[in-house]
Amino acid sequence: PETKLPKVGTTIFTVMSQLAAEHGAVNLGQGFPDFAVPERLVEALDKAMRNGLNQYAPSHGLPALREAIAAKAGRCYGHRPDADAEITVTSGASEAIFDAIHAVVRPGDEVIVLDPCYDCYEPAIELAGGIAVHVPLGSEGGDPADFAPDWSRISAAITPRTRMLMINTPHNPSGAMFGVDDIAQLTALLRDTGIVLLSDEVYEHIVFDGARHESVLRHRELRERAFVISSFGKTYHCTGWKVGYCIAPPALTAEFRKVHQYNTFCTFTPAQAAFAEMIGAEPEHYERLGAFYQAKRDRFREQLLTTRLQPLPVPGGYFQLVDYSAVSDLDDAAFCRWLTAEHGVAAIPLSPFYETPPAGQRLARLCFAKNEATLDEAIARLRAL
Amino acid sequence: PETKLPKVGTTIFTVMSQLAAEHGAVNLGQGFPDFAVPERLVEALDKAMRNGLNQYAPSHGLPALREAIAAKAGRCYGHRPDADAEITVTSGASEAIFDAIHAVVRPGDEVIVLDPCYDCYEPAIELAGGIAVHVPLGSEGGDPADFAPDWSRISAAITPRTRMLMINTPHNPSGAMFGVDDIAQLTALLRDTGIVLLSDEVYEHIVFDGARHESVLRHRELRERAFVISSFGKTYHCTGWKVGYCIAPPALTAEFRKVHQYNTFCTFTPAQAAFAEMIGAEPEHYERLGAFYQAKRDRFREQLLTTRLQPLPVPGGYFQLVDYSAVSDLDDAAFCRWLTAEHGVAAIPLSPFYETPPAGQRLARLCFAKNEATLDEAIARLRAL
Ligand SMILES: CSCCC(=O)C(=O)O
Ligand SMILES: CSCCC(=O)C(=O)O
Repeated sequence: PETKLPKVGTTIFTVMSQLAAEHGAVNLGQGFPDFAVPERLVEALDKAMRNGLNQYAPSHGLPALREAIAAKAGRCYGHRPDADAEITVTSGASEAIFDAIHAVVRPGDEVIVLDPCYDCYEPAIELAGGIAVHVPLGSEGGDPADFAPDWSRISAAITPRTRMLMINTPHNPSGAMFGVDDIAQLTALLRDTGIVLLSDEVYEHIVFDGARHESVLRHRELRERAFVISSFGKTYHCTGWKVGYCIAPPALTAEFRKVHQYNTFCTFTPAQAAFAEMIGAEPEHYERLGAFYQAKRDRFREQLLTTRLQPLPVPGGYFQLVDYSAVSDLDDAAFCRWLTAEHGVAAIPLSPFYETPPAGQRLARLCFAKNEATLDEAIARLRAL
Repeated sequence: PETKLPKVGTTIFTVMSQLAAEHGAVNLGQGFPDFAVPERLVEALDKAMRNGLNQYAPSHGLPALREAIAAKAGRCYGHRPDADAEITVTSGASEAIFDAIHAVVRPGDEVIVLDPCYDCYEPAIELAGGIAVHVPLGSEGGDPADFAPDWSRISAAITPRTRMLMINTPHNPSGAMFGVDDIAQLTALLRDTGIVLLSDEVYEHIVFDGARHESVLRHRELRERAFVISSFGKTYHCTGWKVGYCIAPPALTAEFRKVHQYNTFCTFTPAQAAFAEMIGAEPEHYERLGAFYQAKRDRFREQLLTTRLQPLPVPGGYFQLVDYSAVSDLDDAAFCRWLTAEHGVAAIPLSPFYETPPAGQRLARLCFAKNEATLDEAIARLRAL
């Protein structure tokens, strides 16, 4: 019989990481750091295990972790959610996105996503029986490397069936960030509708040049209708630890937890205890993360300027988009395969992030969450282009 | 608006654990051990973290862990699945059950579940748009404490819309185990149908009195149409580590992975590395698990015979059902709340495991995966009944 998800293949991140391994390529594809987790976090996890915190955590998450998340939100965004009624810990932001969609989207409901967008959004919407409505970022007929939302285009996509709008700031893959003006327009757009907002903020602490992350948590009218989702993977250099969370008002949280408790039920307990200890004890860690990554971004950009790849601006996140049109006429999927196989540097094409990739777009994504030696080796290989 | 899962409340395990904490009760409700994780496993996890295995694992699971699972299946059940095409690691067996259901059940499909059954089955079926068709274990009008499947009743529930049948052996909450005769009847029942089998085998190594666990993996005709789901939580005393897996033929695995990769994507990497090391290095651990728990079962049963609770036979698993009709006329939910609040021992009622609880059933579930001191304290309190 026909499968339920006939369009779904293997995610591009898996495909490119496998190809990178086959060719011994420097893997700047799938987004993950190659440097160490903070020592304190490893110690805290170790201590939790040895103290016997190895059984089911409460399904919503360890109370100490939910309190730490609430306090951090208060410090960072001036709003302290209720740890009991508004915060749920999940097995990574991925699970949180999946659960939030399944909590509210019914068969036939429409969910607006802004292309390019992370590749897990649409399959989760389809599994819930919903319909992903893709609106490109940037303005109609404008520069395909413009990733600012055009709110009139988004407004035009709203119908009586629209149940949810998904946003992501800082944005993967482009690094674009919402400004206060975006927040104002978004607020006006959703006012007097029943549309639920899902805000994916996993790169919340990786922001540059003094910009402020416009978390939905800062904005009352928005947060009262939103699932705000983040995780610790990007902030603490441990993408494989898979501890994420969802902050939402009590009524949305109640529905979210129904899905979560019958999906994963709960999340690896020792890591929850470790983050509970780490967050409060070292706020300077995430406060300094922007500067840490900004130095990497700037150094990598300087080096890229010595290659024939042209780096685009990176306001946030740990991905550098490059225009490769001076090097190759291949489409982006073919270019990234070629770059991996022939030049030993794995990159991610942008087309899998789109329903309809812009014609002639020649952009690839490079992850700079890497040690200097890794990036230096990549640059040495890219100079051969 | 009406919620998507109006019938879903908070799971009974959460409710009873909270009540136990409020009343300082000995918690024999939610099923989890109160003794230590094997030291080697803690050391292995620690080593994995310190060796930097902290980034995303492959979505299907670490290859070394999938190989270890395949080898163990070969040793235990005489069938070695293909680690690449047939095994997927998940964030606990819960996620695996959720993913398997979402991989094949479409709106309007029927899924047969055998009551009493674990409370996550039905909500996952409903979220996928399916319909749970409940068939009681035991025979029509027979003893409500008989938990053997009556295959003619199950057969009568099959319709052209039946997409899946869910089984669980050893069985939670009763401990009942399938025998070879059940396997033969099940095989005949499914032959020439398109029905997918989901076999929940998380208590696979906790079997008593020399009985053999009839894993679906032993039986070719069944395993070729089945998702076989297990986890390490019960086997290694770490229910909070949340590493499970699904073994299924390649076509079912392909569909399963589509859901998994967009649900949690992957699972805590250091624990995967730790289990990969542990499984092969200490096969005697799970080979001895039956004897370890049998001693607990027997001792606990002896002690229960000194109370007014009447223990039922326990062929497998780590739960003891008790008939409390000599003590109280309360229904099981009320009895368990009363036992927790007034006598300081938390138990789980059976009614949440049923669509229609048998009238007059007076059974409660006690978890004996506990240190002797814990069980002794529980017994001392139960003697006051
Ligand atoms: C879950 S694998 C993808 C990691 C990631 O966030 C990215 O590379 O965009
Ligand atoms: C996931 S909490 C429930 C634990 C369990 O398997 C049980 O108590 O039956």
